[in-house]
Amino acid sequence: MPKDNKATFNLKTPKGTKDWSGSDALLRDRIFTTIANVFKRHGGTALDTPVFELREILAGKYGEDSKLIYDLQDQGGEICSLRYDLTVPFARWLAMNPDVRSMKRYHIAKVYRRDQPAVSKGRMREFYQCDFDIAGTFDPMVPDAEVLRIVSEVFEELGWQNRYSIKVNHRKILDGVFQVCGVPEDKIRPISSAVDKLDKMPWADVRKEMVEEKGLDGAVADKIETFVLQKGTRDLLEKLLQNEELTANASAKAGLEEMGLLIDYLEAFGVLENISFDMSLARGLDYYTGVIYEVVTEGSAPPAQSSAPEAQKVQKSGKKDKSKNLEDDDRSNDPTLGVGSIAAGGRYDNLVGMFLPKAQIPCVGVSFGVDRIFSITKARIERDQSAETLRHSEVDAFVMAFGGKGFTGMLKERMDVSKILWNAGIKAEFAYKLKPKLPQQFKAAEQGGIPFAVILGEEELAAGKVRVKEMGLPDGHPEKEGVLVELTTLADEVKSRLAKKQTVDVAAVTQQLEGVEV
Amino acid sequence: MPKDNKATFNLKTPKGTKDWSGSDALLRDRIFTTIANVFKRHGGTALDTPVFELREILAGKYGEDSKLIYDLQDQGGEICSLRYDLTVPFARWLAMNPDVRSMKRYHIAKVYRRDQPAVSKGRMREFYQCDFDIAGTFDPMVPDAEVLRIVSEVFEELGWQNRYSIKVNHRKILDGVFQVCGVPEDKIRPISSAVDKLDKMPWADVRKEMVEEKGLDGAVADKIETFVLQKGTRDLLEKLLQNEELTANASAKAGLEEMGLLIDYLEAFGVLENISFDMSLARGLDYYTGVIYEVVTEGSAPPAQSSAPEAQKVQKSGKKDKSKNLEDDDRSNDPTLGVGSIAAGGRYDNLVGMFLPKAQIPCVGVSFGVDRIFSITKARIERDQSAETLRHSEVDAFVMAFGGKGFTGMLKERMDVSKILWNAGIKAEFAYKLKPKLPQQFKAAEQGGIPFAVILGEEELAAGKVRVKEMGLPDGHPEKEGVLVELTTLADEVKSRLAKKQTVDVAAVTQQLEGVEV
Repeated sequence: MPKDNKATFNLKTPKGTKDWSGSDALLRDRIFTTIANVFKRHGGTALDTPVFELREILAGKYGEDSKLIYDLQDQGGEICSLRYDLTVPFARWLAMNPDVRSMKRYHIAKVYRRDQPAVSKGRMREFYQCDFDIAGTFDPMVPDAEVLRIVSEVFEELGWQNRYSIKVNHRKILDGVFQVCGVPEDKIRPISSAVDKLDKMPWADVRKEMVEEKGLDGAVADKIETFVLQKGTRDLLEKLLQNEELTANASAKAGLEEMGLLIDYLEAFGVLENISFDMSLARGLDYYTGVIYEVVTEGSAPPAQSSAPEAQKVQKSGKKDKSKNLEDDDRSNDPTLGVGSIAAGGRYDNLVGMFLPKAQIPCVGVSFGVDRIFSITKARIERDQSAETLRHSEVDAFVMAFGGKGFTGMLKERMDVSKILWNAGIKAEFAYKLKPKLPQQFKAAEQGGIPFAVILGEEELAAGKVRVKEMGLPDGHPEKEGVLVELTTLADEVKSRLAKKQTVDVAAVTQQLEGVEV
Repeated sequence: MPKDNKATFNLKTPKGTKDWSGSDALLRDRIFTTIANVFKRHGGTALDTPVFELREILAGKYGEDSKLIYDLQDQGGEICSLRYDLTVPFARWLAMNPDVRSMKRYHIAKVYRRDQPAVSKGRMREFYQCDFDIAGTFDPMVPDAEVLRIVSEVFEELGWQNRYSIKVNHRKILDGVFQVCGVPEDKIRPISSAVDKLDKMPWADVRKEMVEEKGLDGAVADKIETFVLQKGTRDLLEKLLQNEELTANASAKAGLEEMGLLIDYLEAFGVLENISFDMSLARGLDYYTGVIYEVVTEGSAPPAQSSAPEAQKVQKSGKKDKSKNLEDDDRSNDPTLGVGSIAAGGRYDNLVGMFLPKAQIPCVGVSFGVDRIFSITKARIERDQSAETLRHSEVDAFVMAFGGKGFTGMLKERMDVSKILWNAGIKAEFAYKLKPKLPQQFKAAEQGGIPFAVILGEEELAAGKVRVKEMGLPDGHPEKEGVLVELTTLADEVKSRLAKKQTVDVAAVTQQLEGVEV
């Protein structure tokens, strides 16, 4: 035993981090599997990089956000930091492997940001990203369109039909708009950042920021307004193409042509209906060079601000009862509101070249915010009061025994039958007791949500038979007491019953997910 | 673009870490999946803890090895360190969740040790552990036996039949032996550590360490020898039970009784044949309190030392040719030699209590060294020259097009057909080129090891048909040129051909794995 053994510990996880267990871990795992399956369906191959990188690799990639990077202590040797995202490690890998000229890679892993956490909304200091990126020189917009098809496929398979929207814009169009409007070259990025806030604040506030904080001419701001509030799809594209001032600008013209190709390809991929060409989307990161996108859902925007003063007034008057107050608290803690975007990405053609100028490899990709997707999914499932369907484990069968006077507990027999099930690939458990009582065993099976009991009775087993009982059958069901099966056919019997049950269950869950309001 | 953009970078991963990509990542993923499936089959539920813990949680748990812990820099706020294993975080979680009185949890994640790396043998500073632990108070040896059944199941499913051995011993038996032999109480742990080296050095060296370094009486050491060199199963147990001096010792008696139960249960679980009751197994970690075990394979021991002077002599004589030298180098770098144990664990009943004395929860568990298992598996597959079966991705079909003069490239048609395949859950790719040449498209499919081509011709497509061609068919095969199918039945057609092919492939791979000498 160690010498500095202390009687008490600060028993917690570090700030902004949490443990994942039980049904939460299982639900999140299912989200991972769904996303990974879509990635693989599109030819994605896994890349796994170390959780920390040499600090110089991360330096100068994240602008102001660099202050959020976790550093490892200098314990002699190299100076390292925890990764901030999965994109920079991917670019570093491409630069290190110059023989790889093209690649579809996916990476599902944790990243680290010393930001202010908001645990209930899934904003953590340690959180998962699920990234898919296509690197390589190809004909314009083809991989870009496939990435958006992937985005759409992921949310369709998660059961979010019609409850998500993919906002798309193009850096070249934006830059062209700013040039046409007369934004000085050195103000383009700051003004672009201001435009990006249009999903959080009204135009009047954004204009104020442009003019008062960033010193933009008011008339220029007013001209920007005529462009950036527009949304649409092919209609918006046609309208912009008729703007001769805009099409005379080389950057805007190139961007609009690419946007035209993208819309064509998205139509061929059958995913145009969830796309919104949104001129206000600008994205914060500097490294994007082409198409940019962001996926939003109902709760992405912060709660309406106009209601806040109202609520304060009511609270000050002291007339609200406690339950009402709690409701308000619940609302501000609602994990489905103010989560921001749930996936985002774009084209970044120059990042790999930052590591190795001769290895310039254009890239386009997307990152899914799984913790946010998880928070929304879980809240919606709980709201639908279907929480009982979220099981903690996936065990198929509980092997139990019963007997009269002189009952030995049949431990080795239960072990032997469990062995038969395991050998057949069936997930099985039994009680770790020499002489468990039958009600205890049933309770364990019920609590685990285990669908089948395999019941050993002394006389039946002596005749080479055991009883298979589906849990939770209603009274009066012909198989309520289970059915006797030969031990030699037990595994097949359980398997075929599981297959039948799973078909029914999948149908129920699918129906349920589709019914979930996201 | 950032200001401190540098033209050159130290393009590498930190010391002792590496990237995983391509077929390596795929093979490792399969190992993970195999292990996780076994864990789930035994009712394991996932637990995911943060990659770093408050430093005080890790303090005093690892003895001398604490110096290998990676610390995070103090950037204001909490003082944290990267986890060193998955066991201590599990114990911390149990102490934090006192309502959970029993649990089967598995955890597959990276751990961090600032140790001297040996990359070719899979000894890294960042590496994966796959842990399964059973927490809770149960009847003796039942969960312990199930953990060993799990160990056996994992290696059987990995295709290592008869190529692994599970060494088992019991701390109480060892302690009893040391007491009976007359080892002073304060020397029991150091003498136990010396015994544990018997897998790396002969008894004479171990005795020397006991007597000369650790000051043990020579006669006591000689008496220890009569016990610790013994191996067996039930025969050894019977022999020890007949030793009246030993059975008169309370600790030894209790340990032998438990070992008897364990052997009975392992027999019921059908896994006794791979078990070796090995009196020399002691395990380094202090926290084990009961049964301990370690899985070894042929290459676990270091290369035979006796051959080293011989090799040196030959080298000194200068008569060895270069190729011979290279062979020797290859041998010393052989990833299948000197890897040590590939899985290990035991019972630790007091660890949770170190965090919260009132929450004493007995535990038993095992940790698989996946990187070592990977290194051995990969080396054996390569040695069998079946490397071509290790694909980089898992794509099912490559959608391609061809045409004569005026060929448009049929990009949107290829997109549309890919969409049909994706919608049916089929993994599909196509060339990101407007007008790709047919040989280029075939080459891409071949390089990816993609089993099927879906070929679009203008006339055939106009008639609502496409061609499905299995790649790699021999000349003269009736379907060498593919078969024409209706677009409406394409997905079903590809699916049924995939199912047929996968059945054949799985049989081939299984045969191959079973033939691999591990």
